[in-house]
Formats: sequence, structure tokens, C-alpha cells
Amino acid sequence: MSNHFHTIVIGAGSGGMTVAVGLAGLGKQVAFVEAQHIGGDCTNVGCVPSKTVIDLAKKFKPGMNPDEALREVTRKRNALREKETEEVRHMPNVTLIEGWAKFTAPKVIEVASKAGGMQKLSAENIVISTGARPRMIEIPGLPRERTLTNETLFDLRDLPKHLVVMGAGIIALEMAFAFRKLGAKVTIFALDKRPLMTYIPEVAEAMQPEIEKKGIVSYYGATATGFDQATHTLTLKQGEKEIQIQDVDKVLVAVGRVKNLESLGLEQAGVKWDAGTGVQVNSFGESNVKGVYAIGDVTPTSAFTHSANAQGRRVVQCIAFPFLPLAKKEPIFPNATFSDPEVANVGLTQKQIAEKYHPQLIKRIRVDFKDHTDRGYTDGVENGFIIADVIRLTGRILHVTIVGASASEMISFFTLAISQKISLYKIYRLVYPYPTFSSGILKVADFFMRETLPNIRKELGAFLKYRFAK
Amino acid sequence: MSNHFHTIVIGAGSGGMTVAVGLAGLGKQVAFVEAQHIGGDCTNVGCVPSKTVIDLAKKFKPGMNPDEALREVTRKRNALREKETEEVRHMPNVTLIEGWAKFTAPKVIEVASKAGGMQKLSAENIVISTGARPRMIEIPGLPRERTLTNETLFDLRDLPKHLVVMGAGIIALEMAFAFRKLGAKVTIFALDKRPLMTYIPEVAEAMQPEIEKKGIVSYYGATATGFDQATHTLTLKQGEKEIQIQDVDKVLVAVGRVKNLESLGLEQAGVKWDAGTGVQVNSFGESNVKGVYAIGDVTPTSAFTHSANAQGRRVVQCIAFPFLPLAKKEPIFPNATFSDPEVANVGLTQKQIAEKYHPQLIKRIRVDFKDHTDRGYTDGVENGFIIADVIRLTGRILHVTIVGASASEMISFFTLAISQKISLYKIYRLVYPYPTFSSGILKVADFFMRETLPNIRKELGAFLKYRFAK
Repeated sequence: MSNHFHTIVIGAGSGGMTVAVGLAGLGKQVAFVEAQHIGGDCTNVGCVPSKTVIDLAKKFKPGMNPDEALREVTRKRNALREKETEEVRHMPNVTLIEGWAKFTAPKVIEVASKAGGMQKLSAENIVISTGARPRMIEIPGLPRERTLTNETLFDLRDLPKHLVVMGAGIIALEMAFAFRKLGAKVTIFALDKRPLMTYIPEVAEAMQPEIEKKGIVSYYGATATGFDQATHTLTLKQGEKEIQIQDVDKVLVAVGRVKNLESLGLEQAGVKWDAGTGVQVNSFGESNVKGVYAIGDVTPTSAFTHSANAQGRRVVQCIAFPFLPLAKKEPIFPNATFSDPEVANVGLTQKQIAEKYHPQLIKRIRVDFKDHTDRGYTDGVENGFIIADVIRLTGRILHVTIVGASASEMISFFTLAISQKISLYKIYRLVYPYPTFSSGILKVADFFMRETLPNIRKELGAFLKYRFAK
Repeated sequence: MSNHFHTIVIGAGSGGMTVAVGLAGLGKQVAFVEAQHIGGDCTNVGCVPSKTVIDLAKKFKPGMNPDEALREVTRKRNALREKETEEVRHMPNVTLIEGWAKFTAPKVIEVASKAGGMQKLSAENIVISTGARPRMIEIPGLPRERTLTNETLFDLRDLPKHLVVMGAGIIALEMAFAFRKLGAKVTIFALDKRPLMTYIPEVAEAMQPEIEKKGIVSYYGATATGFDQATHTLTLKQGEKEIQIQDVDKVLVAVGRVKNLESLGLEQAGVKWDAGTGVQVNSFGESNVKGVYAIGDVTPTSAFTHSANAQGRRVVQCIAFPFLPLAKKEPIFPNATFSDPEVANVGLTQKQIAEKYHPQLIKRIRVDFKDHTDRGYTDGVENGFIIADVIRLTGRILHVTIVGASASEMISFFTLAISQKISLYKIYRLVYPYPTFSSGILKVADFFMRETLPNIRKELGAFLKYRFAK
């Protein structure tokens, strides 16, 4: 075996797979280095098992066995892992190398093989896609066997009677809802002041009543001070208050993620990075060292499988077709949380809008499914909305957040509208099946028209005044 | 009260409501004539109660009371009906007239009041939105109290033990799935050779296994020959075969709809119509008589609430702003069935494609959720797909049909793409949240690219050869 390759991909998660499969399919020799499982987080400890448990929880009915559901999750995950591993092993032009990679020079790595031994590999291009791992916060007195992360959660063989979730982000919320539906008692606590802090605050306002309705107990602005193994009691501190949580079986730690970069020897390669934002890359995923790329969790802009894949596709194009034009900017990445209801958003962040536009130039439109759609009425929806930030007068959409039953599916409509710069005037002319949640999209356009058309002079004036105000 | 109005709207269903509310809001005097309930089919015997029963059936769990669910449907329907009726009664510029309307001249009608008595009304514009009613087929021996249509179904106070559904169209399938989930035994039979005949045949191929999996018994190409009241046995004829269906409680007749036009005296107005396709209207909803419009079920192109509303909005614009430009063509109407899985489509029919294009110019792309999306895997989906018919080389989308969990929500993406002529090349560049069913949209674009790019010369040749071939 030659030790020189066209491209080395370090990390066989979704993003790495996209690059390795893409380049190998184009006839390039690829070394594919993986220290753990093929498929990375997504297949093994992320999207695939989490969405399986969410689906089984949704279909769960009284009288069914929740332990059986959890074992089914493990079975389905393992089956997919084995299938993907076999596919990679037999993929033409791909050499799978199982071990830990470390740079020794800009285009050279050393791999400490899982089987023992060490080998040096070189390549014209190296793609870093080593992903991230759960951030750990120790709780004094809490034994290892009671501590879970997303890396161990899907190996559970029995439903915890009482699951405590530390954190209130995406993973924390998704699992809190799913395990509650399977019949576990669920308590969440977080240092954050509200759930789902990465979304606009209205999301927390809509989600908190849903969290309570499902019987999930929640504490915000709270930290754990200790666990008493004799009584199975977890103690929290919330401001001055001390809270005792009784009969705790397991604690799922879901308080953010750490990029897997520190043991890669990036200094030897001269690649610039820091632990917070990851590898510094341009919009094509290339680092400061020509030919060294990074995609997925180790970059500043992507924390999802779909964004890692999108970055991977761009890197494949950069490497294999350097002469072909490629859009300068990364495509916009939507974001989805599979809680109940779901949450999804796309477009600029509030910070980006504030940096780029005068506040008077922006119109916020809010459609509540309960009050403004008949489907909200038939389905007894209490919380959920479409919020859109648009440029006044022109109706150009900058940002959309949806909380609702099919938010993760509905959001792609807005990804398309924003990418293609389709204004609310055009969206107003479309017909939406009745009665769907998507007919709320028409309401967004309708509200915009009703505020704009009768005040067209005022709107035009404000637009002209503020459009270059920032 | 003056008897002359700006506009008379005959029929207070969704479409009529859109026109009456729209014109009244613009200060026009509207006479709103309704012989039955405000809200028409949608509120009273259509979308609203049917989607309520579908939602309650979805949330139904062992141990719950199905009769309670049915009564909740009636309650919610009645509450909405009362609310809408009150709103109409108090709406400025709207005069509600309860009774049966009949034309006596092009712009004059006579209303036989519900309270007794007769009055003559005239107007500059008359909008016919009288809707449709269920087509009845008598089954010899079947007593009235065992016969249901969508007009009586939602007054049921107790779940039938065994519901037989006559028909295999949209209403038939939606109700068969919902009542089965509530615990009823359900049998469907239809003269049609397959379920959901109005969709492409692949829909039936996907739905039939789902019908069977849910334990719904089905007979196609079958007619009822009689009902024996002593034994509660319904006899079907299927070709040469005779089939006995035992212990039948109720029979829901859902075999199409009849337009409510024959008693309107359209001849006196000189309005052209026929019982099959309805009132002959141009794309603005205007009949051959200037100032007489028709929208919704009584037109050839609309059988849904959302299309009736869209037509209503166009008529409002025509009547109130005749000088403003209005798109010549009606917008495209998507179509959705809330079965399990859902079915939705948008774009040209197969017949329209065949008339307009050479078959060699069309590429059909099929993505199966089970095989081609990870969400299909996590959710254990067995049947369901996105089928798209596109122009080869250019990737312009002509038609899309989706069978799947959120088909009714996903379809709006394609309504937007088709209306705005966004090709699969652009759709390929978008990022879709993972793992959603919508990520199947990316696969559609991906499959198109994989078939097109490596064969670009052949594709270009075929495109040039066949683009004007029809």
C-alpha cells in the first residue's frame, strides 16, 4: 500500500463521509481515518438514534414496553452502523484506516492504529472532520454509572424511572420530550435562563408551557451542587434557593459540545484554530494552510449534519473541480429541533440583522397557529407560531422562526424563498392546501400586505429614509 | 332596507365568505344569501370537523372513549359555526339573508326566506358560490338511519362498531383511516379499480399496503347489491363474485359530489352551465354574463376550500379594483389528502403533460423515503415517495406528487418552486434540515444531477430534438 493519497479525510462522520464518498466516486484515492465508529455522531450517537427514539416515543401507547423501544433504538442504530461500515470497507478508491490521526507536517499525518503500530500518510489535500464530543461537567458525588451523555444514552437497555437532564438546548429538549413520552419521570435543569437559548426568546415562551403540559419539571438558572448516592438525591442551587430532586436514576449531561481538535497536532501543520470557534476557514472550508480543509462541527458555522454535508459537498467541488465556479458564500443553513412541538429557523440571526439594518427598516410579522389558522383550531394547538423579520415595503424575508408540529418540514419553504429572494408579494399569490399549518405562510404574507398597502406612502418614506441608514 | 346591492353573494361557504368579507371590508354593500349554515361545507361538514376527527384519532390511545372524541368533534364544529355566524351577522356592510336564491334576470334574484316570504334583490355583481353536496347512490334495503354522508357523519354521537365506506376517494380514505384509529372496524368498497383514482397510480400502490396494515378491508371494482336489515349484512358484487359483509352498523356514502346549481334558475340569467363541469367561467371567475361570477365547487377547476378562497380573492380584486392588473392565469392549486400517510400533489396533470410535451422531453424522478432518506429509516416508513416530472436538461418542474407523513406541508415548497420557475439546479444548492422528509427534496435534485451531468451531451441533444416536438 502506498502511503500517499489524493486526499486524507480525518473523521468518518456525515461530513467526512460526504467528502470521502464524493472524491472516491470521482476516482480519487482517499485515505479515510476514523478512531471510533463509521458514521460518526449522526449514525451512532446523534440524529439517527435520537430520531428513532423520538419516533418510537410518538407512537408509544399505554401497555407497550418502553425498554423494548429503547432496545429497538440500539438495534436499528447498530444495523445502520454495520451497513455503513461494510459499505466504506468495500468502497473502491477508499482506504479505511482505523486509528488516531496527528499532523506531523502540513500535508503529513501519523496514525496510531487501533490494532497497534503507527503509520505515516501524506496527501495533496487533508480534510479535518473530526467532529465534537459532549462537554462534561462533573457533579460531586454522582457516580459514573448514573451519568449519561448522548454517547451512552442510546445503549440504555431499560427506561430510567426518573431521568434528570442537565441542559436546556437542542439535545436536552429533544430527549426530555421523548423519554417523558416513553413514561419516564423527567426533570431538566440548566444554567440558562430559558430553554433553547440559541433561538429568539419567543421560542422559549412557546415551549415552556409545552414542557410543563407534558409534565416535565424544569429549573432554569440552576446548577447542581451534589448527588447523594444513599438517597439518590440531586441537589441544585437556583440563586439563593436550594432544591432537592429525589429518586434520580440517571443524569443526562447535555450542556454543549467540545470540538475534537486538541490532539490533532494542528500546530505542526501550521493550521490556525482555537478551542472556541474551531478551525479558521474561508467560505470554501479551506484553512490558512492551502490544501487543508475543515468541515462540520470543527468549523465556526456548522453544528448540524445537514450543514456538515453541505460543506462537504463544497469541499468536494473545490478539490475535484477547482476550475468550476462555486458560489462565494456558503448556502444558508436552516436549523431544526425535534421537540414537541418542533422548532426550526433559517436566515439571519437577530445580531446579524441589527448589524446590517436600521431597526426602522425591519417589520416583524407573527402568525399564531392557534389564533390565525384553522388547523391550529382543529388540532387544539395552544403554542406555536411563524415569526418572520422582513424588510418593510419590499417584503424581502431576512429571518423566519417556526414553532409547530411540522416546523422542520415547513422551514424549507423559507430556505427556498430567502435563497431565491422571493418577496412576500409573490408568496401572497400562492395557494396553500387547507387546512394545513403551511396556510399560516399565507397569513404572514396577508398581514404584511394589510400593514403595507393601506400605508404605502408612509412605508415608502420609511424605506427610503432607513434603507441605507446603517 | 334597500333591495339593491353592490354585490350579492349566493352561498356562505369559504369561497363566498372570502368575497363577502373582502368586499364589505372595502365598503361595498353586500347581500349574503345562505340557505343552510354559515361556513358552508368546510366549517360544518368538511375540512374543519374532518381534520378535528383525524387529529383526535391520531392522539387516540387505548383506554380512551371514542364516543367522547366524536362528541368533541361536534362541539368544536358547533362552536366555530356559532362564532362565524355571529361575525357575519354583525359585519358592517353585510346583509345576511337566510333563504333559497333563484335568478329571475341576469342581475336579479328572488329569495325564498327560511322564515317564509319572498324578496327580490338586485345587484351590480352576483357571485355564485353555492358549493356541492354528496352524490347519493341508494343501496336496496339500506335504511336511512344507517346511511351517512359527510353531511351527517359529524353528528354521530357514538362510534359505529363496523363502518362501511362506499367510495375510495379523498373523503372516503380520510374517514376510513380516522374511524379505524378510533377503534371501529372499517370496510371500504368502490367501483374504482384502485384507491385515490384522481392521483397518479403510484399513489394507490403506496396507499393500498397502508390501508391493509391498518386493518381496513377493501374491495375495488365492487358495487352494493343490497342490505339485509335482519342480519345487518351488506352484499357486494365484484365481477362475478358475491361478497357478504357482516354486522354492518353504518354505511358512509362518499362517491363524489354534485354541484348545487340546478335550482338557481341560471337559465333566467342566461348563465351557461352544465351539471358535470359547472358554470363556465373565465380565469377571473366571470361567467358568460358580465358581472355574474362563480367560484369554488360550482366551477370546473376548484374542489377545495383553498382553491375556492383563492378564486374568491381574485373575484374581489376583479370587482373592487377592475383597473389593477391581475395575473391572467389562475394560480396553481395544490391538492392534499389527510390520510395516513398523507398525499399531496401540485402542478400539471399527466394528461396536461402529455398534451403539451413530447414524452422524451420529460424525466420522471422518484425518491422513496424508505430507501433514500434517513428519516424514512428512523421512522420505519415502508411506503411513501416524492415523484417529480421535470423537463430534461433544464430541470424545470412540471408536476410533483408526495405520499408521506407531512406531504400536505411539504407540497408548498413545490408550489413555490413551480410558480417561480425554480429549477432543480437551484434546489440542489439548498440545505435541508437533517433528518427530515424534506431532505428527500435534495435527493430529487441529486438524482436529476446524477442522470444529467455525466450525460450532458445526450441530454442536450434530446432536449433540442424534443423541446418543440409537440
